[in-house]
Parts: sequence; C-alpha cells; structure tokens
Amino acid sequence: MLPYETLIQIDKTLRLPVYQQIANRFVALIQEGILKPGLVLPGSRVLAEQLQLHRRTVVAAYEELISQDWIVSMPRKGVMVATNLPVIRPRSFQAQASPYQQGPGFSFAAVPSLPMYPGPEPKAGTIIVNDGFPDVREAPLEAWIKECRSVVQSPRYGRMLTHGGPEGSLTLRSEMVKYLGGTRGLSISTGNVMITRGAQMAIYLAAAMLIKKGDYVIVGKPDYFFADMCFEQLGARLLHVPVDQDGIDIDAVETLCRTRKIRMLYVISHHHHPTTVTLSAERRMKLLKIIRQYRLAVIEDDYDYDFHYNSSPIVPLASADHGGNVIYIGSFTKSLGLSVRIGFMVAPPAFIHGAGALRRLMDLRGDNLTEEALARLLADGTIERHLKKSNKLYHERRDLLSDLLTTELSHAASFAVPSGGMAIWLKFAKKYPLPALSEKAARLGLRITSGEQYAYGSKPLNALRFGFASLNKKELTQAVAILKQLTGK
Amino acid sequence: MLPYETLIQIDKTLRLPVYQQIANRFVALIQEGILKPGLVLPGSRVLAEQLQLHRRTVVAAYEELISQDWIVSMPRKGVMVATNLPVIRPRSFQAQASPYQQGPGFSFAAVPSLPMYPGPEPKAGTIIVNDGFPDVREAPLEAWIKECRSVVQSPRYGRMLTHGGPEGSLTLRSEMVKYLGGTRGLSISTGNVMITRGAQMAIYLAAAMLIKKGDYVIVGKPDYFFADMCFEQLGARLLHVPVDQDGIDIDAVETLCRTRKIRMLYVISHHHHPTTVTLSAERRMKLLKIIRQYRLAVIEDDYDYDFHYNSSPIVPLASADHGGNVIYIGSFTKSLGLSVRIGFMVAPPAFIHGAGALRRLMDLRGDNLTEEALARLLADGTIERHLKKSNKLYHERRDLLSDLLTTELSHAASFAVPSGGMAIWLKFAKKYPLPALSEKAARLGLRITSGEQYAYGSKPLNALRFGFASLNKKELTQAVAILKQLTGK
Repeated sequence: MLPYETLIQIDKTLRLPVYQQIANRFVALIQEGILKPGLVLPGSRVLAEQLQLHRRTVVAAYEELISQDWIVSMPRKGVMVATNLPVIRPRSFQAQASPYQQGPGFSFAAVPSLPMYPGPEPKAGTIIVNDGFPDVREAPLEAWIKECRSVVQSPRYGRMLTHGGPEGSLTLRSEMVKYLGGTRGLSISTGNVMITRGAQMAIYLAAAMLIKKGDYVIVGKPDYFFADMCFEQLGARLLHVPVDQDGIDIDAVETLCRTRKIRMLYVISHHHHPTTVTLSAERRMKLLKIIRQYRLAVIEDDYDYDFHYNSSPIVPLASADHGGNVIYIGSFTKSLGLSVRIGFMVAPPAFIHGAGALRRLMDLRGDNLTEEALARLLADGTIERHLKKSNKLYHERRDLLSDLLTTELSHAASFAVPSGGMAIWLKFAKKYPLPALSEKAARLGLRITSGEQYAYGSKPLNALRFGFASLNKKELTQAVAILKQLTGK
Repeated sequence: MLPYETLIQIDKTLRLPVYQQIANRFVALIQEGILKPGLVLPGSRVLAEQLQLHRRTVVAAYEELISQDWIVSMPRKGVMVATNLPVIRPRSFQAQASPYQQGPGFSFAAVPSLPMYPGPEPKAGTIIVNDGFPDVREAPLEAWIKECRSVVQSPRYGRMLTHGGPEGSLTLRSEMVKYLGGTRGLSISTGNVMITRGAQMAIYLAAAMLIKKGDYVIVGKPDYFFADMCFEQLGARLLHVPVDQDGIDIDAVETLCRTRKIRMLYVISHHHHPTTVTLSAERRMKLLKIIRQYRLAVIEDDYDYDFHYNSSPIVPLASADHGGNVIYIGSFTKSLGLSVRIGFMVAPPAFIHGAGALRRLMDLRGDNLTEEALARLLADGTIERHLKKSNKLYHERRDLLSDLLTTELSHAASFAVPSGGMAIWLKFAKKYPLPALSEKAARLGLRITSGEQYAYGSKPLNALRFGFASLNKKELTQAVAILKQLTGK
C-alpha cells in the first residue's frame, strides 16, 4: 500500500475543513498521475487509522470525490480511482506530466547501438534463423530445476546468500578446473578461474582491465561486433587485420606489434565470429611465439569449443605455452541452451583478482543458486551427456543445412562447411541484398537478419550466420524453401 | 574426451618407432600438466581409431608408459595417469610450469579492493552479523522453484532464450510499473524501467553514462563504499558533504552547485548507508528545488524502501517533481532473501535506452528464467505477502536488538533506532577498537566486521552496521551476550 500519511498532509490550523483538504490532496495526486486510474484506494477505516483521523472524515472526503467523479464506489470492494477521469480537468492536469515523461535535463554518454537481433519475441509459428544458438527444446530443463530445488533445500543454502566473492562459487570453480582440464587440456587451479554472466561480461571485464583511452587493440575484420563495440566504448583504437580461411592474418599481427605499442589482441581461434573459420596450426604456433616475444595480452574468445563435428577440436591457445598472457573466455549459455547466462574467464591469479575487484563494482557477485546448480550438473555428468547428445544432433543439422543450401540455394548464396559450431556463414550474391530479402522473408513467416551488424563500423557484407542448431529438419527445409522462392528459382 | 589427435602428432618419416613417439608425447603431456594424475585415458581401441593407427601400436605405447610408471593399468577400467608420478623426473618437469602459474607479462589496471565482508563461508554454527541482509530461512524458496519450473514448461520458453533486450523482460517491466506505482507512487511506464543484476549494476551503469574523467560527484560522508569506489573507478573526483541525523547536508550541496560544475549527486534518501538516517521532508523539498534549478543529475539509491516499521515510508524523490533528473535505483535481492540478484533502474526513456546499449556490452541481457519467475511472483501477490510478513518479523527483531543493545551494551556502544531497514548503525566507544573486538569475537563463534569499509578513503569510524533481520531471537541474544562479555561488563 502507498504511504498515504506522507502523501496526504493535513493542516488543522487551516480554515478549510479536513475532509476537504483530503479530497483536494487526492485530486492533486490523481492529477499528478501518482494515483492511477483503476487504483483501488484503502478502505475508509484503514485510511482513517493511517491518517489518525475519525473514520467519518475519510468517508466525507471519499463522498466528495465520488460526487466530483474522481473516484468510483465498487460494491463490496471499496473505492477506486475513476477510469474515466472528469472531462473538465483543472488546468494543471495537462501541464503537469509525470516527471519521467520529461527530461533528463542533463547530458549523458552516447553509446552506439545496433539493430537488435533476433529482435522482439515473434509470433508463434515464425521460423527464426538466429545467429548460432542451441535448441532450447533439447536443453536439460528438468535436471536444471531439480538441481535448483536441491540447492535451496540444502542446509548450506542459508549461508550462501551473503557469502562468496566476485569470482564465483568455489564449488563451481573446482568443477570448472576438472572440466576445462578434461575437455581442453587446460592446466589450472581455482585461483585461475572466474565465473561471469556469460562470455560478454568476461570480455568487458578483461578489456576494462587492459584498455586505456587511445590504446591500440588488434581485431579481425570482420569480427564479433559486440567485442569491437566494447573495446571502442572503453576507449580503444581498433587496428583491423584480415581474416581468411585460416583465421586471422598473423603476419599482419606481427607487423603491427613491431611498429606500434599494442595493448591487446582479440582472437576467436576455434571458430571465428562471424565467419566460423578455424585458426590453422601453423598460425597458432606463430602467434604463440609473438605472444611470448612481445608479452602481448590476448583475449581468446572460445565461445563454442564444445561443438565440433568433423574432427576433435584443436586445443585452445590457452592450453599451450603463452607465458600467462592469454586470457581465456568461454560460455555455458550456448552449451546448455538454458536462459541463464554463465560464462568464465581463465587467467593468472593476479589478473583474476583484479578483474574480481572490478566486477564487484559492476555486479557484486553472481547468483549462487545458478552457480551451485551448474556445479552439480557438471559433477554428475549431466552436462557431458548433454553435450554428447547435442553434438550428434547439431552435426546432423549442419549436414542437412549444407545439403539444402547446396541443392536449393547455390544460385544465390555461397558458403564453406564449418567444422563445428552452430552456424553457417552464408554469403549472398549482390543481386540479393539482405535488407530487402529479410523484409520479404518476414512476410512469409521467416525471420532472418539484414546482416548489417556483422560489418559493424564498415560497409555491409551481404552475409549472415545461418544458425542451424535450433531448427529441426522440417524448419530448416522450410526456411531454405522460402529463401529459394524469394530468390526466384 | 580430450582431442588426442591434435595433442599427439605422429611423424611417420621419423626413425623413432610410432609407439615410442606416442609414449614420448604422453610423457610430455603429463609433465606439462595437461594430463593430470588420476585422469582415465581412452581405451586402446578408441585411441587407435582417433589417431588412425593400428590398435597394437597404441597397446605398445601404453605398455611402454606402464613400464615407466607414467600410467597404471586398472582392471576392467583401462589405464589412467599415475597418481604417484615417477620419482626421477626429466629436467623439464620442474622447469615447465603451467602457463597460468606464470605471468601475465603485461601490465593491467589496479582496482581498489576492500577486505571482503562477510567473507568466506563460515563454519556451521557461527553467528554472523551481516551488514543488513534478510533471513534466507524466511524466503519464499518453494514458490520460487515452483515458478521457475512453470516458466521452463511454458510454450513460450523456447522463444525466450534468444529474445528480449538488455532492458529486461517486458512481462517483468510491466509488473514493475504496477508495483512501483502501488508502493512508491511512481508514475511511469515500461519504457522508464530497466531490470539489472542487483542495484550495484544499476549504480554502475547510471554512473558510467554520466561520469567522464575528472568530473565532480557529490556524495555523503560516510557513504555506501561500493558506490564511492565505483564513481572513482569511472574517473570521478568525489566531493563529500556531511551527513547528520536528517540525512545529507543540502545547503552544502547547494553551495557546491553554485561554485562548480557538478556532474552528479548520489543520495540514499530513505535510509542512508551506512548510518540509516532518513532525509528530512524539509531537506527533500530544498533538494528538489536544486535538482530542477541546476538540472542536477541525481542517483537516488533506495535499496531498502520495502522495510519500514515506525511509520509508512516517505515516498522517494523520484515520485516528486524533479523534471526527469532523478535516476531511481532499487533491488529485489534484499526484499526476497533469495540468492538471485535482481535490481532495477527508473529514468527517462532516452536514458534507459542508452544505459541498455551500455549494459549489452557488459552483459548482453539478464536471465529470462529469473526475470519471468519474479514477474509471476509479483503478479500473484506472493511478494506483497512476503514483504508484509517480513516487515512484521524484522520489526520485532529491530525492537529486540534495540532493547538488548540498550540494556547490555550501552557502556560500550551507542546507536539511534532506525525507522526501517535491516541494520542498526552501532558506534563503539574508542576504548573498544573494532578490529581487535572482531578478532576476539571470531574466537567465540561470532563474526562481526572490523568496520573499516564504512570509512572507505578516510579514517575508520569504529562503527558497524549490525544487521538484525537475518538473526532470530536466540542468535541476537547470544551475539549481544558475546559482545558484552568481550567489553568486560
């Protein structure tokens, strides 16, 4: 209930009767929009007690308001603010808007923003080609809820609320050490791991620890757009190196390191975003040498290591000899297909400690409940089983989409089959501009992106990431059929 | 499973037999710590397939490794890396540490960090006096889990994973509009609301939208330490104004506004942190005038509006006439007592939009599951009922603690009864320095803070926030008894 005794102040020294003062104050509160049409007001007995007045005074005020049509009486339910307010409104009604319809009167930062994709929640039945997300229909939802229940029922839960640092649950960090060792050959201990809200927070934190205004940061071109935007927001000047079928051009990286003071390199070695290419073994060896020689700070974003079909994945740079200069980042959000965001950062303990202090200022700590539940799913093998199953399913879907694109759409778009991940990088011929194509597709119940975000800061590439993991056979077939129809063949 | 085919490369042109090459590579991987003691290795058939070799070659390699004691054979379970590695280790074993035991070789930002409080998870049975947190034992845990289950089972859940912007779930924002209108008289719409990870993220985002290096920011003295640290981290120069029993000194604020370009004011009008005082009505009126006159950007942190005992709360500055210049911040983490962190920010739509773009770079979006579950608890009245019940319980606990402190501890500490919230600001006499007292208390099973964080950036105040909400009668009585014993009376 609203604090009516502070909203309604009575001055008994005034000549205006108290009931009238109350009524006037109610009118003002309604006019100011503080009491909204349809709001149920407290009963006269309750309000009288709150205002420390006789009940009859409140009844009189309510009657006055009813007679003026500001409030209406509802049988057995008391009174509420009229949904049709009096037509002849006092002048101040139009003049005084809610303070939040105005202003602000002060200036604030301009933050660049991309057209949001995949955008607002669509109508049921729309086929959505996302950017490479898992299939929620396959996620271990019941296991997740079961573990959450078990966490809140555990005797330790009471102590979890206020404890634990910004690096995340120790239970989860211990499980991560085993998991990252077993899947990626990372040799680390809990002091090397920080749990974050998705990989994006890890990227922001690591970059904020490194970048000062004007610093040079090397990125691929094209690159993961939210990373580029994040670095620029933090004050970096971006230096772009080309990306070909073997990943980013390491010779170009070396040339830059030789000629300028480079603050940091951002690399997505396993499946580059957006183009899905893998950094070749030869370039990895060269890059590791550069990292050691120049003590180059590297953010290695390994967002979809867990998904690989042709062969086993190449272990990350982080697992090789880099002298502690690789900050390794990954995510469980994509691996699990749950709408909880959990990522991680691996780095030397001193860096993790500093990043933790910074995270505390942005977001005191993570959700213990979520972190403990994830730890249990890792410990009991649920995640390993889920990943095995998903890999098989997504492998089939990748192959199906590759076949469909080859047989049905090769007149309009080209691609290379990715060795893993959840998306195919599909380049459309110039005669099929994506902004127009996506508009037409929307009318046929297919949502695809206009692709502009992939070329953040430069000219559009007329290409998109066609996420195949979240679509079943029927949906993939239908999506390609619609694109075939729209490209007129 | 590890990607052995990338970890183990065979060169058939070498004169060294292939089984020996495999064995050597395994020794190196064990020495480098990539294969850890106790790790179960793949069966010879599986590994042979992965490496595309004859099974006998792998068996020969494993036998070589067993004979060197690097791995051990376990009946029916295959082979694993020995837990007691060979005593005579090759020289490189000691020399080559995990890369994450080294470095980093690059420099990075120094972020100030406070002694963490309440610190790591304590032994069961320890009484913990926290800073003002709710009692998890009273939280609506079952209702929470039930709603989470219901969300993941809803047909919409599949579409939630990839959708929704950085401002948070629209369902929750609609519920927030009703909730904030009904409890605080805020007249807003969904475009004014952003859901964040706890109030801390809202503070950081709002401040990051405003502060440029060198800007002046007015704060109380003492103040909420994580806010001060956050503003400084973002480059602000802090200007401190005194805080007395009526809240921050508004005349001092006006003097500063007249003489300098002020970027922002941070105010905790309902219960100042740490001292719990309420900003008086007179000062509020004055402050609102200053806000309008100077178009002063204000962050109003209202972290515990939901808890008030003596009287109804005073509506926030945000509900009054401020011309859209008050950024209003609050939290559900404290209201619910759940270990999920949800806060919110209310501001004009243009500011919310910009803060959303910034949030996207730090943390793409919130957890849909958590946000939808909270929306349901708001809609079905669970939260209102929970708050009513908690207010009654915490009121009793505040009164009990006030009585205990008066009768048992007045020789050592003084305080004013707060009108709400979850903590009493307890000032100890000089002869009882808190760092020593807290050390002694720990030995008797009572954890209290040394209080140093409350005086961030200046000299310790020898005072602490004695959180009463999370402790029952027995625990409060015992905590005060231990303090009495330690202060020698």
